[in-house]
Amino acid sequence: MTQNLSASKTISPLIIVGVGLLGSSIGLAVKRRNLAHTVIGIGNCPQTLDTALRCGAVDLVAAELDCLTEMDDALAIICTPVRAIVEYAERITALNRRMLISDVGSTKGNICRELEQRGCRFIGAHPIAGSEKSGPEFGDGDLFQNRLTLLTPTASSRPQDVEHLRTFWESLGSQVICMEPHRHDEILAKTSHLPHVLAATLASLVESAEHPFCGTGFADMTRIAAGSPAVWTDIFLENKQPLLSVLEYFGNRLERLKTALCEEDATAITQFLETAQAKKLNSS
Amino acid sequence: MTQNLSASKTISPLIIVGVGLLGSSIGLAVKRRNLAHTVIGIGNCPQTLDTALRCGAVDLVAAELDCLTEMDDALAIICTPVRAIVEYAERITALNRRMLISDVGSTKGNICRELEQRGCRFIGAHPIAGSEKSGPEFGDGDLFQNRLTLLTPTASSRPQDVEHLRTFWESLGSQVICMEPHRHDEILAKTSHLPHVLAATLASLVESAEHPFCGTGFADMTRIAAGSPAVWTDIFLENKQPLLSVLEYFGNRLERLKTALCEEDATAITQFLETAQAKKLNSS
Repeated sequence: MTQNLSASKTISPLIIVGVGLLGSSIGLAVKRRNLAHTVIGIGNCPQTLDTALRCGAVDLVAAELDCLTEMDDALAIICTPVRAIVEYAERITALNRRMLISDVGSTKGNICRELEQRGCRFIGAHPIAGSEKSGPEFGDGDLFQNRLTLLTPTASSRPQDVEHLRTFWESLGSQVICMEPHRHDEILAKTSHLPHVLAATLASLVESAEHPFCGTGFADMTRIAAGSPAVWTDIFLENKQPLLSVLEYFGNRLERLKTALCEEDATAITQFLETAQAKKLNSS
Repeated sequence: MTQNLSASKTISPLIIVGVGLLGSSIGLAVKRRNLAHTVIGIGNCPQTLDTALRCGAVDLVAAELDCLTEMDDALAIICTPVRAIVEYAERITALNRRMLISDVGSTKGNICRELEQRGCRFIGAHPIAGSEKSGPEFGDGDLFQNRLTLLTPTASSRPQDVEHLRTFWESLGSQVICMEPHRHDEILAKTSHLPHVLAATLASLVESAEHPFCGTGFADMTRIAAGSPAVWTDIFLENKQPLLSVLEYFGNRLERLKTALCEEDATAITQFLETAQAKKLNSS
């Protein structure tokens, strides 16, 4: 049985599959807070594993999952691009059916449905934290402090596993909210994946000769376009339908503004901008 | 004749019509560098004028332009919303044909064409600097430091007036580039007005209940949506055709990504994102 984190405040060991920016940030956060006796990093790039080790994000590294066979009390968190999560979770389950597995993927619907169908002891997680940078050298032990982490248990999830993960993320400084996997994907399509599409499209149509004429607004709006193309391709494909819906919705709104502009309807344009101004995040 | 700024490094007086964030920032920058004996703020809101005076952005304030009649050596900079610039410039010209008039408007084509036709001694200027905030209380004497200011002289502009304005903006820390007014509008449609449309549209479609699920990327992307709706309505209307063209261009690019997503064409999506990543501003 998985050790009760809320009682002991430690898990041992913590397995991190994929020690990029997010995986390493978890390792650093866990080690700084002494939440695990050992943090093991697993991945298929020797150089990345070595960097994570040198950064102090993990205590041990391994190229293969074989070492997980005997570790019943461990928690494994898969921090790979989203399209690799299902396969890793299945391979871990094949080695050790009792291990609690989670992830940090930006999409949840497909992953949770597939792993529930295959009887994996998996609960999806998504910390709303990250960076346009990638690699363990950018790991940050405070990345999850005061941020929100979403858990997406399903009908098959054991309540004590949900509580275990809630305590884990709260220990890293996160606020934790549970929601249905498909609801997660609908919301994130709007709040994260659509912004990435817009940032990338905007960045792609300005030539470097025009960069001197870009202000700080443009720089802020295209910052996230630096994110890994491979990672984001995965996210877009995994969240295809919700993203297409929200792109449609966005296109319709944009069309409304274009019509107002064509008709030189100052009142309609001002109302559009007033709505945006009123709705925007107060914190930003 | 206008005093030679490059010789004396001072102008006297400097007239700022509209003492909002930009007008007050000019006042603060000029006073800090002792570039003018007197800075006079003119505007139709007593409270704004009073704030600008209290902030030290101007030495004197006036509600009317009448005081400009005798000030031949003065430089008048119109810092109002773009759709008020032509009228103010005409009124100043009617009072004093010899006064050099400039502005800080975000659009240049219509303004420069109309004022050239009417024989005003006007040269358009646009410092690529600003803030989503508004009002003299947010004035910043360093706002133009290390930023670019575009001057848009026309065939009728006197070379010594262009040099006078170049020296003025360089004295405030700006780099100065001259370009044709319509070229300015085409570029800014892409680098500034389109980003504002996208930020506002994105902000408008996320409800406050969804704000907790927004990361820093979303916050950065919608920051500029806080800008004054009235000011931006003016800008959009003044730059209607270039903005509609660039919206069309943006829509076509977005459509390409949507098609790739519909077809689950991972290679095309990754290429799209790689292009964006390569083209994005290095500084951001």
